[in-house]
Amino acid sequence: MIELFLIPRPEIERIVHASIPDSARLALIADICRVNALTAVKRAGSGHLGSSFSAMDIIVTLYYRHMNTLRVGFENPARDIFFSSKGHDVPGLYALLYALDVLSQEQLLKLRRYGGLDGHPDIGIRGLEANSGSLGMGISKGRGMAWAKRQRALGGQVYVMIGDGELQEGQNYEALRAAAHQRIGNLNVLLDHNKVQTDTLVSEIMPLGKLDELFRDFGWRVARCDGHDFAQLDATLREFATIQDQPKILIADTLKGRGVSFMEHPQALQDGNGLYRWHAGAPADAAYRAAHAELVASINAHLASLQLAPVTLEFVPPEIQARPTGFVGTNNQLFGEQESQPAPQSGPVSDEYVATAFGDALTALGATHPELVVLDADLAADCRIRGFAQAHADRFIENGIAEQDMVSMAGGIARMGLLPVVNSFASFLAARANEQIYNNATEQTKIIYACHYAGLIPAGPGKSHQSIRDISLFGALPNVEILEPCNDVEAKWIAEYCITSAPENCAVRLVIGPSPRLITLPAAYQLQRGRGAILHDGADAVCFAYGPVMLHETLLAAEYLRTLGFGLRVINLPWLNRVDREWFADIVTPFKFLHVVEDHAPVGGLGDILLNELAATKQLDGKVFAKYGVEGFPAMGTPWEALERHRLSGARLAERILHAHDA
Amino acid sequence: MIELFLIPRPEIERIVHASIPDSARLALIADICRVNALTAVKRAGSGHLGSSFSAMDIIVTLYYRHMNTLRVGFENPARDIFFSSKGHDVPGLYALLYALDVLSQEQLLKLRRYGGLDGHPDIGIRGLEANSGSLGMGISKGRGMAWAKRQRALGGQVYVMIGDGELQEGQNYEALRAAAHQRIGNLNVLLDHNKVQTDTLVSEIMPLGKLDELFRDFGWRVARCDGHDFAQLDATLREFATIQDQPKILIADTLKGRGVSFMEHPQALQDGNGLYRWHAGAPADAAYRAAHAELVASINAHLASLQLAPVTLEFVPPEIQARPTGFVGTNNQLFGEQESQPAPQSGPVSDEYVATAFGDALTALGATHPELVVLDADLAADCRIRGFAQAHADRFIENGIAEQDMVSMAGGIARMGLLPVVNSFASFLAARANEQIYNNATEQTKIIYACHYAGLIPAGPGKSHQSIRDISLFGALPNVEILEPCNDVEAKWIAEYCITSAPENCAVRLVIGPSPRLITLPAAYQLQRGRGAILHDGADAVCFAYGPVMLHETLLAAEYLRTLGFGLRVINLPWLNRVDREWFADIVTPFKFLHVVEDHAPVGGLGDILLNELAATKQLDGKVFAKYGVEGFPAMGTPWEALERHRLSGARLAERILHAHDA
Repeated sequence: MIELFLIPRPEIERIVHASIPDSARLALIADICRVNALTAVKRAGSGHLGSSFSAMDIIVTLYYRHMNTLRVGFENPARDIFFSSKGHDVPGLYALLYALDVLSQEQLLKLRRYGGLDGHPDIGIRGLEANSGSLGMGISKGRGMAWAKRQRALGGQVYVMIGDGELQEGQNYEALRAAAHQRIGNLNVLLDHNKVQTDTLVSEIMPLGKLDELFRDFGWRVARCDGHDFAQLDATLREFATIQDQPKILIADTLKGRGVSFMEHPQALQDGNGLYRWHAGAPADAAYRAAHAELVASINAHLASLQLAPVTLEFVPPEIQARPTGFVGTNNQLFGEQESQPAPQSGPVSDEYVATAFGDALTALGATHPELVVLDADLAADCRIRGFAQAHADRFIENGIAEQDMVSMAGGIARMGLLPVVNSFASFLAARANEQIYNNATEQTKIIYACHYAGLIPAGPGKSHQSIRDISLFGALPNVEILEPCNDVEAKWIAEYCITSAPENCAVRLVIGPSPRLITLPAAYQLQRGRGAILHDGADAVCFAYGPVMLHETLLAAEYLRTLGFGLRVINLPWLNRVDREWFADIVTPFKFLHVVEDHAPVGGLGDILLNELAATKQLDGKVFAKYGVEGFPAMGTPWEALERHRLSGARLAERILHAHDA
Repeated sequence: MIELFLIPRPEIERIVHASIPDSARLALIADICRVNALTAVKRAGSGHLGSSFSAMDIIVTLYYRHMNTLRVGFENPARDIFFSSKGHDVPGLYALLYALDVLSQEQLLKLRRYGGLDGHPDIGIRGLEANSGSLGMGISKGRGMAWAKRQRALGGQVYVMIGDGELQEGQNYEALRAAAHQRIGNLNVLLDHNKVQTDTLVSEIMPLGKLDELFRDFGWRVARCDGHDFAQLDATLREFATIQDQPKILIADTLKGRGVSFMEHPQALQDGNGLYRWHAGAPADAAYRAAHAELVASINAHLASLQLAPVTLEFVPPEIQARPTGFVGTNNQLFGEQESQPAPQSGPVSDEYVATAFGDALTALGATHPELVVLDADLAADCRIRGFAQAHADRFIENGIAEQDMVSMAGGIARMGLLPVVNSFASFLAARANEQIYNNATEQTKIIYACHYAGLIPAGPGKSHQSIRDISLFGALPNVEILEPCNDVEAKWIAEYCITSAPENCAVRLVIGPSPRLITLPAAYQLQRGRGAILHDGADAVCFAYGPVMLHETLLAAEYLRTLGFGLRVINLPWLNRVDREWFADIVTPFKFLHVVEDHAPVGGLGDILLNELAATKQLDGKVFAKYGVEGFPAMGTPWEALERHRLSGARLAERILHAHDA
């Protein structure tokens, strides 16, 4: 295990009180926060460093030089408010709030752990002012806060950080226009203009044009400066404070990855062959060491130039791996966040990514299906469609971060006889573009919606990214089939089915990580509409589940229950809203106890479909029906923490299934 | 009954072939189409004249002078394509398609009738190229069509009409940017810049700034001309055809209501005290006669100046009122589209608008609840919140047509300790702003979502406006209570409950029209969380329903069943996702047969909540559970046609309830 080090708060205090120029002070604090954000993310195993670093100098200037918040307190309605609309940059903010003694060191080191700091902002954490993470909502929300401050005659400014890639979301323009019309003068938007979005340059994905003119056209006061020049930042924010009848936006020119040479573009883009590798994910050990060393060397050189002693580093003790507290001990694998995860502790492990299998199948099908068109909203790497983009460049459409436009465009493409496959994270696609999906569906064309990042896991990013409502959001559309593959073979079959033979629209849920185990399908199993496969047999109860995550947990439950002499038949049912009546009756008839495990909220998922089928066919007499889903908002943490919290781990499922039989 | 007249196609042919200047020919055709649109809307009892008239000269120029569509045929993939993103202007297009012999006279006279012409565009109708009506999707969809044409190397231009109020929707800016970046040169956007949106001036609701500059900033070729000058329109479209590497937008300055003096602004706004009255709804008899006479006089004067004979008018026979074909004859009332509906044929009639009662309650509560803030997205009149806006102007926020921004702004307002009530049509609010609603919900603040136009009725506007998915779209949010009042007393109670005591967010479904009957609540009934009221008693089965529309139908069913000696207990259950366990058990225990009538799709509505409650409490043994909802996409037509088509009329419900008992 690599050794991690942070720079403890007393060292920051030393710099706060040193007799040095103010710009030097802020620069040193910012670099120390970069070190601490780096260490927090490395320890968490995931997180967003590139934009934490680009935004750092701006927020340090804000909190140390402009905002009254620490002085008046976070409960004071007259406080200044800061939040970031592009909430993935929150590790930087956490490091700053640690420097400011708002968060403890213990909290900082519990990034992306249950009870710790969410991967995207959550107001349950002290100092956090808004839940964000899903892009493009911040100006609207800040406008609401600023309007309410004015309405209530409260003092205080509202500062909203936004990203440049984020400006592709249309909601920004609704908010820009309204804020200017309403003369919301206590609203300040800070654009961290680092020119790089998730995968690559904004100018390559979807260029923004002349931003200064654009914001002026929308009626805003516009300033522009070097986002790493503390004097310029300070002067601009000072000027903004004097303008009270117009909303203000600062275009701060920054560098993504600022402070670490190989994380800064253009170097980083060259190293990554055009792909920016430091947007999300913890750096590997060597990269962590190099980044850490470079930042500390820079801090110490700066200190030396000011006749100050170098910083003292504090060793961060290794994380004690959380263990299941239940009676099944093989379920603490961490999976799903792309890179640098701690190795699983035990049990068989799969390296199967259903998203990769689905993406590869699209690429292969593209060769024989000239009608196939793949659309992306700046998540091509995560959605595993870069292969398609390379193989069939003329049929790959990059839309930028604009899910609604992407979906409606797909509607137009489908109307002209082509077959679009629309890719995004499930929560963004199903929720944000819901009305556009409905509108397309009413035209009775065929479109495939590839819903990545579906379900509870990974839980580190937090509730903006965990998609546990998407089945319900598609559910009332009469002509959309919802499917979820459990392994890469099934993912390929589902891709082929959707493209070649599905009679209607398809929504395919794809989890982003590999399963902790390979889900093995019976040799004779074939994909058949409305039918599933028995993965584990037993005579005491039957349990339906889907997808790699919950099938693994359900199989763990079955394996444990078997040791108790309780036989649980586990069914993989990849069809989430289509049931083959005959097959289903055959499956359930022998059983009194019927269970469903959902990688979804308990409302509007597979369980409701099956319960309705049972009611419609009058098969409920004498039966006990129970379903287990994600109750409440999805818990943040490691996969195991989230599963355990929602009582969906194998251990808890086994307990709950037994309990249903005892009741 | 007023006598209606149209101008028959032979008269249009006469003008098409007359030896007159081309501009005169187009102007005459456009005015004739105005007459025919006016008559179609008057006969339909509702429809949108203001923007049909402002856009008319543009589409006449397009179809008669530029588009190849009629020559090559609507099935030809190389055809030019036109559709309007602001689909409410479709009566004008229907009149034009009648003039062009694409639609028959019989079809034109079946506007907003089942099997006829939808209130908003539907591709099931010959000549219609896209389903629209929900605003702001058109440029995206047109971009998809144009991209596909290019990809498939097909000829033909794509023309998308948009409105100026519609430009408040953020999706437009996603599409504008992407189309320019992708150099979609066969895409032409035509802005019907009539300066008036639903209720009043765009510049009052949410001004758009300098549109020419804005579109240029987004990378478009921009032209501007008088949208009623045929020579200018012709020249501009001709020029557009020569530009192949850049998308093009024409800002056509037009007059809403063009052609009828009292429908044109500024006169119309003066007459309406600032409210534009001719956006939606059929004119009353006197207004119809005056408008018709003015248009015909203008046409005849124009013809006379060209030495042509005046037009011959054709009498339109009165509509034969559709009658129920089932065995219950008291259910053909037309209700719900605001004005000028034919009088109901029989039975008791209510003039209760639950939306009015809810809006009035907000106004009253505003006096004692200074924290109450009401937000609107350009539907203040329909949402019955103009009273609040007048009484509490400082706490009324007009956001323009920008539901996402409105919802996120409400989130910010709630974070600052105020209580926002967000108003829009249910379909737009629940679907378009779904992710913003989720984000707000995760912050655990309290917001009231007033979802107007909920349910199947009125069915004339068509599926873009009929909201039969909204319960399912809110359903998986753990902290949103969904309620629907059945009459104005309950609407007032629900408003009071939501504002004063609801512990969490509320979504309130409000139907827009009055019920065909007053729904009478028991004298002792009070609103209690999770409980309902018995409206009609009976011992053979129990049926749950909600809202004025379906309770009326369910009561009709009960009344008929009673004549057959079958007792149906009818329960009004205004709580759509919260069930009081004890009350519910008491209600259902005596019954073997349990029925639920949904003003919603059968998936994700009240029925699923009740079925789950029955399963969770093991009350299903020996029971028969049946639910009746809107299967498939909602049918367009009169209320009775839609109810009958979905087998949800009182007659059909009685049949289905009996059938469940026979089975």
